[in-house]
Amino acid sequence: MAVKFADRMENLKASEIRELLKFAADPTIISFAGGLPAPELFPVEEMKKVAVAVLEESGQTALQYTTTEGNVKLREQIAERMNRKFQTKVTLDDILITSGSQQGLDFSGKIFINEGDVVLVESPSYLGALNAFKAYGPKFIEVPTDDNGMIIEELEKILAKTDNVKMIYVIPDFQNPSGKTWSMERRTKFMEVVNKYEIPVIEDNPYGELRFEGEIMPSLKAMDTKDLVVFLGTFSKIFAPGLRIGWVCAPEEMLQKYNFVKQGSDLQSSTIAQMEAAKYCEMYDLDAHVEKIKAVYSKRRDLMMKVMEEEFPEGIKWTYSEGGLFTWVVLPEHINARDLLKKCLEEKVAFVPGGAFYPNGGNENTFRLNYSNATDEMLVEGMKRLARAIKSMM
Amino acid sequence: MAVKFADRMENLKASEIRELLKFAADPTIISFAGGLPAPELFPVEEMKKVAVAVLEESGQTALQYTTTEGNVKLREQIAERMNRKFQTKVTLDDILITSGSQQGLDFSGKIFINEGDVVLVESPSYLGALNAFKAYGPKFIEVPTDDNGMIIEELEKILAKTDNVKMIYVIPDFQNPSGKTWSMERRTKFMEVVNKYEIPVIEDNPYGELRFEGEIMPSLKAMDTKDLVVFLGTFSKIFAPGLRIGWVCAPEEMLQKYNFVKQGSDLQSSTIAQMEAAKYCEMYDLDAHVEKIKAVYSKRRDLMMKVMEEEFPEGIKWTYSEGGLFTWVVLPEHINARDLLKKCLEEKVAFVPGGAFYPNGGNENTFRLNYSNATDEMLVEGMKRLARAIKSMM
Repeated sequence: MAVKFADRMENLKASEIRELLKFAADPTIISFAGGLPAPELFPVEEMKKVAVAVLEESGQTALQYTTTEGNVKLREQIAERMNRKFQTKVTLDDILITSGSQQGLDFSGKIFINEGDVVLVESPSYLGALNAFKAYGPKFIEVPTDDNGMIIEELEKILAKTDNVKMIYVIPDFQNPSGKTWSMERRTKFMEVVNKYEIPVIEDNPYGELRFEGEIMPSLKAMDTKDLVVFLGTFSKIFAPGLRIGWVCAPEEMLQKYNFVKQGSDLQSSTIAQMEAAKYCEMYDLDAHVEKIKAVYSKRRDLMMKVMEEEFPEGIKWTYSEGGLFTWVVLPEHINARDLLKKCLEEKVAFVPGGAFYPNGGNENTFRLNYSNATDEMLVEGMKRLARAIKSMM
Repeated sequence: MAVKFADRMENLKASEIRELLKFAADPTIISFAGGLPAPELFPVEEMKKVAVAVLEESGQTALQYTTTEGNVKLREQIAERMNRKFQTKVTLDDILITSGSQQGLDFSGKIFINEGDVVLVESPSYLGALNAFKAYGPKFIEVPTDDNGMIIEELEKILAKTDNVKMIYVIPDFQNPSGKTWSMERRTKFMEVVNKYEIPVIEDNPYGELRFEGEIMPSLKAMDTKDLVVFLGTFSKIFAPGLRIGWVCAPEEMLQKYNFVKQGSDLQSSTIAQMEAAKYCEMYDLDAHVEKIKAVYSKRRDLMMKVMEEEFPEGIKWTYSEGGLFTWVVLPEHINARDLLKKCLEEKVAFVPGGAFYPNGGNENTFRLNYSNATDEMLVEGMKRLARAIKSMM
């Protein structure tokens, strides 16, 4: 066949996480691999009432095309929510509805990256973002991180010597995959450096509300004085991913670009899904729902930590996550997590090897564990199997 | 601000159609501008039952993530429908669910187009497709058309002398914007030429089922013997655009690329919207619903044609559309349709000037009219205002 694909297709391959979801579908496997919310917490009964209310009150509107920007009520609710939770001062006019925050990642790549441009990311960083950006052919430079987030001295060193850095992609709250959260000091210093170099920042915040202890820290967006920060939000982790409702909150000139890109990409996100999300927020108490989710996830986190304490052999480290969905495990250097996964799949337990989260490779002795999507019993059993597999490789 | 966008952003601007939708939202304007289905025909009552059934039977699944490829039942129904309506022989494995067929257009650009590559399009062609492709920096070559579709001799001349043609984008049935349909002879000859040069074809078919008279002709996909044709379908015109359910039906190697791109772009289309579309097809008769739509739209087409016959001055030509949503008007060369639009907006009537549908410019004496989204009374009144405005410029 003489068919030729675009060069960019050389950069794309199936996401390891998505491929692993195929295992997760096997009911005999205990999967810590995905980033799936607990389905038993979805407000199914409420959504039945919401769906009927939307169709009864404005069925024709719900099934018709709408504007690219998205539903006004939903954008108002999102702006109010962001301001209350993440200390921003934004209005509905700063917000574009997207199909999950993944779409905001793809759009960010499309808007900022020319082939060969540099994108700075935390080391490690979210695999789905790396894959979205790869379609636009960037060079990734990984900025070292520690338990308090990005190491700002390292960031500044890189910026001082690197041309054509087009954007910095970060997940300051309960990072995927590491589970870590940036300290207030790091946030402040980060914004000082960013302001100095005037580099756009993509702040990905899918988990920020899921803080089990302590107070939510201000978002980078809230600290942005030079119109540099794009905030990506989503209902996927605090409500339901099946609706595919996320958003971009960006400075005016940038948001206009996101709007143009949205038009060309899929015109708009689902009208009815947007109206249902808005109606849910009107009829029910999303804050209360988030509290319910947090109570369950924090117990699961505790349980996972407890089994690791009890069962993991010495020489293994992991993140104590103050919120979100993930913890991150660092094995002794001689153990390859991909090999461990093969062994684990025989034992019917799954996770995501950490190497995939480093765009420039290495760190094969790490892996990511998700604790949101397993019952207590499954969680304990799965972690015990995992511990056995690790011990057999020590 | 030192922020630099990617070079491709220079190619993108707001779609003229989408900007005009803002006028259409003004209830005092009679708009023939959009491509909106008639909302009074949406199956609102049925969708209430469908939404409740989906949430009752499998609420947790409906609100959770699903596979990138999409819902199995829906893909089965789509394959069956394509085979029955468009004479293809495809299965669910040939199909990827997208967020409207617009997303299939964007993905096609991403998969096939390097900057500077040539894309062949009908002259004129769909503005939304041109805008989607523009993000990838192609050079457009327009292939001349007549009342029977693309002129194959012209296509062959272009292919014989042009390197790096990466794809051919066509809408053979009730084309947007021209309202024209390719004859059987043209389809056959087109596929002969395409097979000879082995160029991928993007066959966009949002309106094919909306044939008011005569028989639906086989799709190009049905005539594809060399795995060259990608078929883009959608529920937007035969069911409801607010769900954002479309699909890509492509040969195996290509479909794999569409899948990778879908993963990076937004992971998957809405789980619940997919399940609702599948459930509607199971609980109700989509064929009967399409018949109902066709009956209304063909009456509106007749009415629009009648007013044009009676009210338009001599020297103006238009398409007799055998189906779909649009007709296409050619004014005398000295009348600019953008000027006419300005006059019409004062008279509270809107349409889309035709120049926007020619990627390389010109043809400013043309415009597109939509007849699906106005009641009889509004349609007659709007067309009379339009006729008055034209007469004043003759």
